[in-house]
Amino acid sequence: MTPKLIDTTALETALDDFATARNWHQFHSPKNLAMALTGEVGELVEIFQWRTEEESWQVARQAETAEHVRQELADVALYLVRLASVLEVDLNQAIADKMVLNAQKYPPLSE
Amino acid sequence: MTPKLIDTTALETALDDFATARNWHQFHSPKNLAMALTGEVGELVEIFQWRTEEESWQVARQAETAEHVRQELADVALYLVRLASVLEVDLNQAIADKMVLNAQKYPPLSE
Amino acid sequence: MTPKLIDTTALETALDDFATARNWHQFHSPKNLAMALTGEVGELVEIFQWRTEEESWQVARQAETAEHVRQELADVALYLVRLASVLEVDLNQAIADKMVLNAQKYPPLSE
Amino acid sequence: MTPKLIDTTALETALDDFATARNWHQFHSPKNLAMALTGEVGELVEIFQWRTEEESWQVARQAETAEHVRQELADVALYLVRLASVLEVDLNQAIADKMVLNAQKYPPLSE
Repeated sequence: MTPKLIDTTALETALDDFATARNWHQFHSPKNLAMALTGEVGELVEIFQWRTEEESWQVARQAETAEHVRQELADVALYLVRLASVLEVDLNQAIADKMVLNAQKYPPLSE
Repeated sequence: MTPKLIDTTALETALDDFATARNWHQFHSPKNLAMALTGEVGELVEIFQWRTEEESWQVARQAETAEHVRQELADVALYLVRLASVLEVDLNQAIADKMVLNAQKYPPLSE
Repeated sequence: MTPKLIDTTALETALDDFATARNWHQFHSPKNLAMALTGEVGELVEIFQWRTEEESWQVARQAETAEHVRQELADVALYLVRLASVLEVDLNQAIADKMVLNAQKYPPLSE
Repeated sequence: MTPKLIDTTALETALDDFATARNWHQFHSPKNLAMALTGEVGELVEIFQWRTEEESWQVARQAETAEHVRQELADVALYLVRLASVLEVDLNQAIADKMVLNAQKYPPLSE
């Protein structure tokens, strides 16, 4: 059995429980979750916008941004996994399939 | 030992190998990956923009959008995991910490 | 009379006529237009994601990207102006007010 | 002479003066401005994410969101116009050309 590229099982359950405990299912339509994902990506991007590429390597190591970038990465992941979950998409399978397509589209450099 | 909420280990390795085989490390600065993540989220959002919330529940089940939405979810996941990886952020830990903060910020409804 | 910072009058009318002629008013809720704006910004960002800052200065001058970047800038502008229009927000006044706030938040360097 | 669909002349000058007075030209590469535009769109989208389409019509009229939405629309406009300006793209001409393309792509309903 091939190990999964990504395993989101426990997180999907945790997010569903979290939504249930707050009566949030009414808000968690795929359309709304896609918008929320956008908003979080916007917050993540803001960390990088005025930094050079070289400076961008340091944002997770510098005290003034490390916690912020960790939180924004987490927020993006939370909404992405939640969105896949409510759509009943197997994210691991979708990723595995996409990586096959990507390998066809972008063949490796000849060895 | 608590099971991980999310496990991206195999995917991180696969993505790093993929970039190495194509000499893409030069492009994969955190700043650039954050932009690429944005672009993919934009493509995902486009699937939902003219659909109602109710219609949005069907996009992963309807033949004309199912494959598209799976691919866009995968693309977002690929860049998110790659970005966390190059930043050396432990995405599982970041998510676990963020969920604690979220639970404090949004207490569950009283039972 | 102060000249306007931005004048979108003719474009707002043109966009409303365009939507009317295609029976698109049913789709142009502010929520949907905000999503469409996101999608177009994603397409614009994709032009820049693998380019360095220095290379980014050339995208509107190089044959292979010039037309593309013009179209994406236009698409973002179209949805932004349409969104402000359906919300009945005076974009010129909103901009004028925001620039006053920005000048307070970021005072100019002392001369 | 056809009136312009959009006139951003005064705003472009004001934004350039604003950047000069703060020594911001070093940050205003097209790549960076495209990222900043993304961030602002993310903030705008957040206003709409948990609102229904019907509720979204009210955000510019309700006291608790009216000023916020005006500010975010302005921020998006500021970065869009600044980006077009540093790229030396004539936004009015780009919009006029794109509307011709859009009219060909989406013919009006027969009368």
